[in-house]
Amino acid sequence: MDINQVIRVVENVKQKTPLVHNITNVVVTNFTANGLLALGASPVMAYAKEEVEDMAKISRALVLNIGTLNETEVEAMILAGKSANAHGVPIVFDPVGAGATSYRTKTAQRIVEELDITVLRGNAAEVANVMGEQWLIKGVDAGEGHGDLVSLAESAAKQLKTVVVITGKQDIITDGVTTYIVHNGHVLSTKVTGAGCLLSAVVGACIGVEENPLTAAVSAVSSYGVAAELAAMKKEKEGPGSFQVEFLNQLSHLSAQHIKQYASIEKKESV
Amino acid sequence: MDINQVIRVVENVKQKTPLVHNITNVVVTNFTANGLLALGASPVMAYAKEEVEDMAKISRALVLNIGTLNETEVEAMILAGKSANAHGVPIVFDPVGAGATSYRTKTAQRIVEELDITVLRGNAAEVANVMGEQWLIKGVDAGEGHGDLVSLAESAAKQLKTVVVITGKQDIITDGVTTYIVHNGHVLSTKVTGAGCLLSAVVGACIGVEENPLTAAVSAVSSYGVAAELAAMKKEKEGPGSFQVEFLNQLSHLSAQHIKQYASIEKKESV
Amino acid sequence: MDINQVIRVVENVKQKTPLVHNITNVVVTNFTANGLLALGASPVMAYAKEEVEDMAKISRALVLNIGTLNETEVEAMILAGKSANAHGVPIVFDPVGAGATSYRTKTAQRIVEELDITVLRGNAAEVANVMGEQWLIKGVDAGEGHGDLVSLAESAAKQLKTVVVITGKQDIITDGVTTYIVHNGHVLSTKVTGAGCLLSAVVGACIGVEENPLTAAVSAVSSYGVAAELAAMKKEKEGPGSFQVEFLNQLSHLSAQHIKQYASIEKKESV
Repeated sequence: MDINQVIRVVENVKQKTPLVHNITNVVVTNFTANGLLALGASPVMAYAKEEVEDMAKISRALVLNIGTLNETEVEAMILAGKSANAHGVPIVFDPVGAGATSYRTKTAQRIVEELDITVLRGNAAEVANVMGEQWLIKGVDAGEGHGDLVSLAESAAKQLKTVVVITGKQDIITDGVTTYIVHNGHVLSTKVTGAGCLLSAVVGACIGVEENPLTAAVSAVSSYGVAAELAAMKKEKEGPGSFQVEFLNQLSHLSAQHIKQYASIEKKESV
Repeated sequence: MDINQVIRVVENVKQKTPLVHNITNVVVTNFTANGLLALGASPVMAYAKEEVEDMAKISRALVLNIGTLNETEVEAMILAGKSANAHGVPIVFDPVGAGATSYRTKTAQRIVEELDITVLRGNAAEVANVMGEQWLIKGVDAGEGHGDLVSLAESAAKQLKTVVVITGKQDIITDGVTTYIVHNGHVLSTKVTGAGCLLSAVVGACIGVEENPLTAAVSAVSSYGVAAELAAMKKEKEGPGSFQVEFLNQLSHLSAQHIKQYASIEKKESV
Repeated sequence: MDINQVIRVVENVKQKTPLVHNITNVVVTNFTANGLLALGASPVMAYAKEEVEDMAKISRALVLNIGTLNETEVEAMILAGKSANAHGVPIVFDPVGAGATSYRTKTAQRIVEELDITVLRGNAAEVANVMGEQWLIKGVDAGEGHGDLVSLAESAAKQLKTVVVITGKQDIITDGVTTYIVHNGHVLSTKVTGAGCLLSAVVGACIGVEENPLTAAVSAVSSYGVAAELAAMKKEKEGPGSFQVEFLNQLSHLSAQHIKQYASIEKKESV
């Protein structure tokens, strides 16, 4: 992927300030909103069945996240999602903790069945469990995986007809045909709750300004990873508290220069 | 307004640690509580219909915020508000996102009809929509306004018989007769989610120690803006993450000296 | 208590990364999750009645906190708690605001009646109110206490057959027979919302790796207090915003050396 495409997407987020409608978990609402604001997007959180269809319709992207799901919220997600689908608003789905309880797994599967998802973003265990594969998960953290993550991502993308993003030590982004591997990011992100949830929301911001979901997702994942690396360069020694604060700073300062210098995007050669 | 009144209000918050009962949105609960603590107030969040009447009754102010409203929470707001009204506890109302969806607009209008609100705090679009005027709003951010904001504030204050605070590039505070314009604050606050919501809560803290709601509101808005300016002086270059942290620091250190030096409060001359 | 026991518990949290299931209030979810991650534990928040039994069962500890309770959540707490009890998963209970409203008091009493609690952690007013004693409380902050806190803790521990932790200027930890007083911590923690809630969750993390609940609780309270002191050494002058960030840093860096140097644990001599 031409790095200038990534730069253009990030700059468009700043210029167009896309409205991103989040129905997300209570742990990460604040961090998600602040991360989107730092990047230049315009976050809104709305959950009530009375308004989610209206809010999704006027947004540039809808982000669904089942991190602290309950039946009322799931119904709101379905309503919002159908409204988004009807009005051409792309949906990012983050199946937090799929596999940890059967309720989460079933709900995640229901969402991908009832809605047309544009991008599915999760760790390997979550994506596998959405696909009906057994994959050990511990709470909401990825367990030790087995198997070929690229194959998992590609088969999920084909079956669900979405772009799939599997994040981990390296990040895999695929539409089932073309696959990219991003080598950015920093391990301190795993010590910040909601780092994955915010990434899903950032994918939403990028897809709100870029029609090609694969380009949008690669742009989101790589620039997010670059911001994490820049934050770690400054604050790794201090610890996760300082890193989180600096990460918001870096998201707001992301420049073409930073992205050109640090983004590491590999196109997987087809076999 | 005599600047010593503002200083006295801020000092009284620290000394009397007023209990401020918040029914607010899930995005900003933590930042609101930490902001109130930094200023010296005593925040409590309570939402259940079984207890909101009791909690409102023992509080010095009730702050209602519809940022992530739902029917259960709106019912709790009405119950809490009626209890506050019955016991002489002042109410601050923040109609977050009024105008973005018809559900928000209707709910905001219901709240100002059913309850005696002491201070209404919002951006121009929100206040206009509460008043039944069409005003474009984008998500929960103020859209580009039109019309005369001072007139809007004054007519809203007269019609609703409350103090109205409209925040934006400059902040307008009026009871419909006397109007102040505050020129404090910093644009980085727009990159911190819940900056407006916390201001509403700070109005609650000030009104909890100052009987005159206009004095309380002007004190809250100006001292809040001074804290934002002080934070920006120290951390603007770093970015919104560091600014938010420093803003909490500055709220806790606000001194008579700072307020005297930086507060910029203009009394509007009547025409 | 041998200081090496405390060190071992803290090191075991890092190595074993116990899954800690939290059903807690909306104000502190993010800070609680980040605090547990900083310490090395693996937090999960799950509230839905459809999944709390499954989640509690696979966790190493369940932490219940009624800071923003409602009936749906209380039912989930009871379901999760019964599942924890059935599967030998220890429960930490934090009766936030017991005494502030009769609903909170009754709910707290219901929880200690229906569930076998392993550790009860609160301020003096909260613990007294759980025990049915009148004790003035202001919102969710401890009021000015009266009476002998050690006697209160010991009688509560005996009556409820739990370990009781009463935090305040000094922290009391007792199983009703053996009582420790910890002299760590820093007053700036009272300016950070959820400092007590996170401590309850840290007790959960420690009890997830240490079978003796008294040892686990003393380890949690003292190491938490040491981290607060280290954070204050670095950031007290800056204020509560910087202190909170640094506190997360210090939790992640807690070392045997720090604990040996600063932990102040006094065993109360029996009379």
